[in-house]
Amino acid sequence: MRLIVQKYGGTSLGTPERIRNVAQRIVETQREGCRVVAVISAMAGVTDELIKLAQQMSPDPSKRELDVLLATGEHAASALIAMAVNALGARAISLTGAQAGILTDPTHLKARIANISPRQIHELLADDYIVIVAGFQGQTAEGETTTLGRGGSDLTAIALAGALNADTCQIFTDVDGVFTCDPRVVAEAKKLDEIAYDELLEMAGAGSKIMQSRAVEFAKKFGVQFEVRSSLKRASGTIAKEETANMEDVVVRGVSVERNQAKLTISGVRDEAGIAGSIFSTIAASHIIVDMIVQSAPIDGVTDISFTIHKDELEDARKILMPVMNEIGATQLRTTSGVAKLSVVGIGMRSHSGVAARLFECLGEGGINIQLISTSEIKIAVIIDEKDVERAARLTHQEFGLASLTRAAGAMHPLT
Amino acid sequence: MRLIVQKYGGTSLGTPERIRNVAQRIVETQREGCRVVAVISAMAGVTDELIKLAQQMSPDPSKRELDVLLATGEHAASALIAMAVNALGARAISLTGAQAGILTDPTHLKARIANISPRQIHELLADDYIVIVAGFQGQTAEGETTTLGRGGSDLTAIALAGALNADTCQIFTDVDGVFTCDPRVVAEAKKLDEIAYDELLEMAGAGSKIMQSRAVEFAKKFGVQFEVRSSLKRASGTIAKEETANMEDVVVRGVSVERNQAKLTISGVRDEAGIAGSIFSTIAASHIIVDMIVQSAPIDGVTDISFTIHKDELEDARKILMPVMNEIGATQLRTTSGVAKLSVVGIGMRSHSGVAARLFECLGEGGINIQLISTSEIKIAVIIDEKDVERAARLTHQEFGLASLTRAAGAMHPLT
Repeated sequence: MRLIVQKYGGTSLGTPERIRNVAQRIVETQREGCRVVAVISAMAGVTDELIKLAQQMSPDPSKRELDVLLATGEHAASALIAMAVNALGARAISLTGAQAGILTDPTHLKARIANISPRQIHELLADDYIVIVAGFQGQTAEGETTTLGRGGSDLTAIALAGALNADTCQIFTDVDGVFTCDPRVVAEAKKLDEIAYDELLEMAGAGSKIMQSRAVEFAKKFGVQFEVRSSLKRASGTIAKEETANMEDVVVRGVSVERNQAKLTISGVRDEAGIAGSIFSTIAASHIIVDMIVQSAPIDGVTDISFTIHKDELEDARKILMPVMNEIGATQLRTTSGVAKLSVVGIGMRSHSGVAARLFECLGEGGINIQLISTSEIKIAVIIDEKDVERAARLTHQEFGLASLTRAAGAMHPLT
Repeated sequence: MRLIVQKYGGTSLGTPERIRNVAQRIVETQREGCRVVAVISAMAGVTDELIKLAQQMSPDPSKRELDVLLATGEHAASALIAMAVNALGARAISLTGAQAGILTDPTHLKARIANISPRQIHELLADDYIVIVAGFQGQTAEGETTTLGRGGSDLTAIALAGALNADTCQIFTDVDGVFTCDPRVVAEAKKLDEIAYDELLEMAGAGSKIMQSRAVEFAKKFGVQFEVRSSLKRASGTIAKEETANMEDVVVRGVSVERNQAKLTISGVRDEAGIAGSIFSTIAASHIIVDMIVQSAPIDGVTDISFTIHKDELEDARKILMPVMNEIGATQLRTTSGVAKLSVVGIGMRSHSGVAARLFECLGEGGINIQLISTSEIKIAVIIDEKDVERAARLTHQEFGLASLTRAAGAMHPLT
């Protein structure tokens, strides 16, 4: 009998009615002839409410107690799902992360899964139970409750699918799958039937917040194939998997857009070891997240360093950097907000040259100025004016034939 | 160093501010030189909300899953208290019932405590931690979460006080202690300094819902002395303890009143074995709770049976009894609603005769008709018209000198 691990997120559990719908879907899956393990997030809004309560207790609540508090959200939701499944005539048992055998390191609020001992799950499945697992949490060797951080329930599902050697892992969300671009930006965007882990990772890092990187990285490391699909519709979603040979025939899998960026350029930086380190360690110490970093080639022993951050952190960054400017002998700090990042992602880039040139030409022909460029093996990212970003996405989407991906188009391989 | 177990109920934890007040109180107790274990209920209203959610999942939610769901209320509250204690500069750790070593039988929703292994609590206390324990819950030998039923957090506190051999057990509530009568009924009612377990049990059964009987019974069985006191005021409360010789000098410890009663009288019942059984097994099968039962002496082989129930269940009881009436050959079923029960309770009754006569005379002189009488070793209960009940309580309170209990009065012993 097929073993399937499903994960349902908070928005799929926002109301009692939605919880019953999820239960219905779980029961249908069993009746189709599967053994089912369902990983459950907290009901939408619950985690935020708990955090708010905690903040009323203490400006800096103890991480250990936050974990105890937050884990209750998933406990409650999984018990409710189990009740609803039972009410439909099937038999379900809810398990906490600890009972499901999820052992973590002791890093509260962002614990790493150390080991999974799914003995109890196997026994329950053998007795024809549907097993409901509270996501997002585990237990240390000392029996302390831990949580896995944002996206932790995805991680629970993928890790369980790996440990149980499940036939399928389905991540149910409020979107239909992974798209060639955000359909709100590019109307012709197409749902992808499959995507390589690395592509999904680059797209996750580029503003497509379908999955947290940690969960995808875990899936990649342990080779756990999973499907991102809608909890509201019956259509199949997007399968994330190891890259296959024919995936490389697609040069660009998708286009991502990230708004609300700010660009900082420090000019006249001495080209010496340790200078970049002192800039970015200062920034990191203030918990400002830096995205792209570009350093130009030095001329006469001085260079420029540019980087991007979220625009809301621009003022803080400026304040923090001013003292450092003198230390490193920089001449100027220029800042630009109102910029956005556009990324094209595809493992096909590895074997196809000229992708960058095609992107730059396409944007140039559209009169869109590129302010910063950063590339990885399978991604090209550019910083452009935020006002141009939707047009740029549409032009790029068209240039790489993404709207016709499912039909054979140019160098594109028809996905099956 | 003194070891103190405190229990805080839901109304003491109704708002973030109240939670912080409780934390303050816990920290003060430690700073006075005590080791502290605090047992915490769910925040007011949380348990009811969870039950409501469960009912939206299923008309008959699985008891196992209800226990998982309900236990989250106490988990969350104890983590919040621990955060608030930490914020005050003390060091606290919250424990679930399972972590606190509370082992129960597998009866979900009303589990009985089988054993307590407070190893972890001892270790934490030895390390100067304040230990916050989620009340109302435990774990079976198989690691299943259980809850202890209504009043379960009181039970947790008393059982832990026993297992830890605590010097003091304090049950914090929204009342100042146990009173000679409900102060809303008799303005001169006095707070008792001490009360015997048996008296508290009889008063709990007679409408003084300060403590659930199960917790008091547990305290009596294991000789755990505890104090009922206010979480809002600093005054000492009422100590419940084994009866002592001088307690018997007080004939009547308190007067209880229970409104909304109904009386049923079945006349012409054949005086044969099994007749009463068939009446009350019929009633019990419908989950109607019967309070007083009185059978008169048979005349010519027939007798009357009277009993009382809550008035809301009168119609149901009448419907259920009609078929039985014919079976047992009864001639008439008379029902009276609008009656109330007045009870006087005191272990001194065992050694003092004439208490009943004094009560009846007192009521008679007040022109209050007694419709039914029932007595136990330490309690006399009468059914009277509901409209007379406040006046009856005041007359009785006065007759037995309860308002002056703390001063020596008549046969009364001054309490210390």
